[in-house]
Amino acid sequence: MKKIVPILLSCILTSFLTHGQSPQEFIKKSVNEQQWNLIDDFKSFLAIPNVAVNAQGLQDNAQWLANYMKSKGIEDVNLLTLPNTSVPPVVFGEVKVPGATETIIFYAHYDGQPVDTSKWYPGLHPFHPSLYSGMYEKGAIVLPWLSKGNNYDLNARIYARGASDDKAGVMAIINAYAQLKTLHLQPTVNIKFFFEGEEEAGSPNLESLLELYKNKLTSNMWVICDGPVHQSGKKQLVMGVRGDTHLELTVFGPKRPLHSGHYGNWVLNPAMELARLLASMKNEKGEVTIKGFYDDVVPLSSLEKEALAKVPSVEVQLKNELGINATERPGALNDALQLPSLNINGLQSAGVGKFSANVIPTKAIASVDMRLVKGNDWVKQQQKVIDHIKAQGFYVTYKEPTEEERKSNAKICMVVPDKNSYNAQKTSLDNPYVKRISKAMELSSAELPVILPTLGGSLPLFVFEKVLNTSPITVPIANHDNNQHAENENIKLKNFFEGIQIFASIMLLGK
Amino acid sequence: MKKIVPILLSCILTSFLTHGQSPQEFIKKSVNEQQWNLIDDFKSFLAIPNVAVNAQGLQDNAQWLANYMKSKGIEDVNLLTLPNTSVPPVVFGEVKVPGATETIIFYAHYDGQPVDTSKWYPGLHPFHPSLYSGMYEKGAIVLPWLSKGNNYDLNARIYARGASDDKAGVMAIINAYAQLKTLHLQPTVNIKFFFEGEEEAGSPNLESLLELYKNKLTSNMWVICDGPVHQSGKKQLVMGVRGDTHLELTVFGPKRPLHSGHYGNWVLNPAMELARLLASMKNEKGEVTIKGFYDDVVPLSSLEKEALAKVPSVEVQLKNELGINATERPGALNDALQLPSLNINGLQSAGVGKFSANVIPTKAIASVDMRLVKGNDWVKQQQKVIDHIKAQGFYVTYKEPTEEERKSNAKICMVVPDKNSYNAQKTSLDNPYVKRISKAMELSSAELPVILPTLGGSLPLFVFEKVLNTSPITVPIANHDNNQHAENENIKLKNFFEGIQIFASIMLLGK
Repeated sequence: MKKIVPILLSCILTSFLTHGQSPQEFIKKSVNEQQWNLIDDFKSFLAIPNVAVNAQGLQDNAQWLANYMKSKGIEDVNLLTLPNTSVPPVVFGEVKVPGATETIIFYAHYDGQPVDTSKWYPGLHPFHPSLYSGMYEKGAIVLPWLSKGNNYDLNARIYARGASDDKAGVMAIINAYAQLKTLHLQPTVNIKFFFEGEEEAGSPNLESLLELYKNKLTSNMWVICDGPVHQSGKKQLVMGVRGDTHLELTVFGPKRPLHSGHYGNWVLNPAMELARLLASMKNEKGEVTIKGFYDDVVPLSSLEKEALAKVPSVEVQLKNELGINATERPGALNDALQLPSLNINGLQSAGVGKFSANVIPTKAIASVDMRLVKGNDWVKQQQKVIDHIKAQGFYVTYKEPTEEERKSNAKICMVVPDKNSYNAQKTSLDNPYVKRISKAMELSSAELPVILPTLGGSLPLFVFEKVLNTSPITVPIANHDNNQHAENENIKLKNFFEGIQIFASIMLLGK
Repeated sequence: MKKIVPILLSCILTSFLTHGQSPQEFIKKSVNEQQWNLIDDFKSFLAIPNVAVNAQGLQDNAQWLANYMKSKGIEDVNLLTLPNTSVPPVVFGEVKVPGATETIIFYAHYDGQPVDTSKWYPGLHPFHPSLYSGMYEKGAIVLPWLSKGNNYDLNARIYARGASDDKAGVMAIINAYAQLKTLHLQPTVNIKFFFEGEEEAGSPNLESLLELYKNKLTSNMWVICDGPVHQSGKKQLVMGVRGDTHLELTVFGPKRPLHSGHYGNWVLNPAMELARLLASMKNEKGEVTIKGFYDDVVPLSSLEKEALAKVPSVEVQLKNELGINATERPGALNDALQLPSLNINGLQSAGVGKFSANVIPTKAIASVDMRLVKGNDWVKQQQKVIDHIKAQGFYVTYKEPTEEERKSNAKICMVVPDKNSYNAQKTSLDNPYVKRISKAMELSSAELPVILPTLGGSLPLFVFEKVLNTSPITVPIANHDNNQHAENENIKLKNFFEGIQIFASIMLLGK
């Protein structure tokens, strides 16, 4: 047990001094006793559909959250909206602490990735949360929800859209504050809450929202809760994120589906043309072969190199867990994530399996995702791909080809570039909050977090720098094997409860 | 107008001698008067679902057909079944003609390709036949069904599964006979009817059925009605078909869908691996690069080369119609079809468009179709592809990979080979029926048909040679732009009515 004298002195926490326990131990005990209650609330929140195509669902989430925050003693709660738009509101709240001279804004998002319910395991549904004893695919059994006085198995998992990405983050932050309030532990910093509703859509309005509510959003630091903890199971503190952009590519074949016997090997097959095009973008070593793809990358600082060298090795564990023998690039996962990437998210052309028919398809579609690192500009990175497609002999168009375009071009590719894209962001490892937050996390979980120069995933964190001139730090809490962004998303209860403890500890930030 | 003295002499057709009209003109007039009735019957037939997954639907089709044939005066109608199986029956019928010394069996099939109703144009449904003034996609309007005394626009099209492939064939053959009967025109040959119910499933039981009912199926010639007429609009007489075989290829990635940010460019992406694999199978010139792919091809005879040289050029028309500028192989369509082909029927991996998510997919699937020409053996042709996949560094399995297989192999491809495959068949251009049937077609449509050494498409015609030692000839009737094997299948009314006339003329075959 570690003594945390500086915090104690600043907080007037006489009640537990007598017991010789740290505030973090108090919080842990309290969270433990409140498991049933915390899960009940979480379950209610998860049952509200939170996908972009359901605007009313997002509004319902925001309203539920605002009420929930008020019920937890957060007084100054507002829905920050963009006038004359239907943009899902930011749920904002504020707690002013007597004597505190610093302010931390805690960020999470309440919207989730699109769902295709038919792909979820039997018995699971994205918006009917269910509890399993472990990983569904490893034979876990369904468990009942518990009432007061009973404790959950910490390895159990809740399956639902948003369970880990990122309703767990929202709930952990609110309940961290609620725990402090219940335990009469006074935060050492002023606290603001900022819960976004458009993150999975690429946060197209975050910048406008920050601009509009700039005066409300002054702070010394943004702490972002999103993404998974380190695959080793250790907590992590993340100094940046990769940027993200997408292109949807459609290669066109004949105007109508053709019989593959009567026309097969005379008419060009768009699925084969697409395959060839995609194959031209990456070599067998996993290197993107698009001209200039790696040109703008800012090299790692020496502090970042040191931090990367300390990241625990998870490669053997991961290969085992994922059922893979080889990787696209050799070496460590986190080394690969320091580079921009190009990844196929999906392919579709006519039908396969029982939907397969003897046709030459009319078109073939690939959804391509690109991650960007510091130095990359998403517009430029998209253009490199477009130039590459042209260099492969394709005529590039941005809408369905006209008769005239069809007549005059041998190969046609329609490109739909994602306009809701953003660049990478990195906070310097020199930032003084790195050590202080790292210390608070250590006090909460009895070990130093892994410090990652960048997460592989993306968040539009650049806007905080751009609009508010604040470089954020990310503290993820979800288990790494949470299926976020896919069917069967889940969170391990251990991660959820520890998440509450961590944020409570950060709200008691020491110098 | 041509006089057809030999047929007249043999048929005792005094009724029209007095009017100076040929039997073919009489038939045409009669078909014209019966349009409403023929279409009514056809529409009823098309409304019965005829896909392989719906066994009851196929039985219903067979029963409907048997009743229909009886109603048209075909007396000896039977359902030929395979005992102790649920194989859709062959609907068989027979007409013995006094004095006739030859027998022709007419073949068509009543089953259709699989349907994905959601892909049909709005307003169309595979089993609710609808009539349009022309091609739907060219702005055709829906037309009413007509009653007695009204004539249809011959350019109108019926949209339904099986409209052209091959319920039109079935109906044309039955009604050809029905017209002769109504007009008291006596066929010059004995007629047998053979309507299969498993053609689109690759006719897996045709051989057994022919074996079992060998004694019923004696004939001098099989005339097959399936496939489209020549793209020039001319009738054609087809001497062979390509063989057909399929492989479904599944490339495996991680066991669970991974976040493309947190893992993208470390974990191998199965969609990219599949793209690379497919791209390795064909070069930019449209040549299949799989080792030995063209090795077993039997060269064309000089008669075949002559026939091909006479095939009207349709390449410019087709490019225009299909909205394509270039082709996979240079030169004439029919030259390309003399070679074995490899074609992608479909691709699927995770989702695209609104179903796209930021994932590394768990697998990527391609449905591959191969056409075979004389000399190719389908088992051998499949093996060439499998060997190629292995040569690209894949571990090939025939079922979902085990944990152990995942652990020990960098790249895994599951191959599901289609066992219901068959080889190509060709009837020699020396066969005496070629000229006789060609003449009957000329009498019906006032021009010589195109003679094609092989159709690009496939039918299991090899079994007629194998079991019954008879080489068939194919007489297609459907418009070439009929979308057979895809959504929005249709037949032009002109083709349907002329089909009836052609088969009636063949039933009046001259020496």
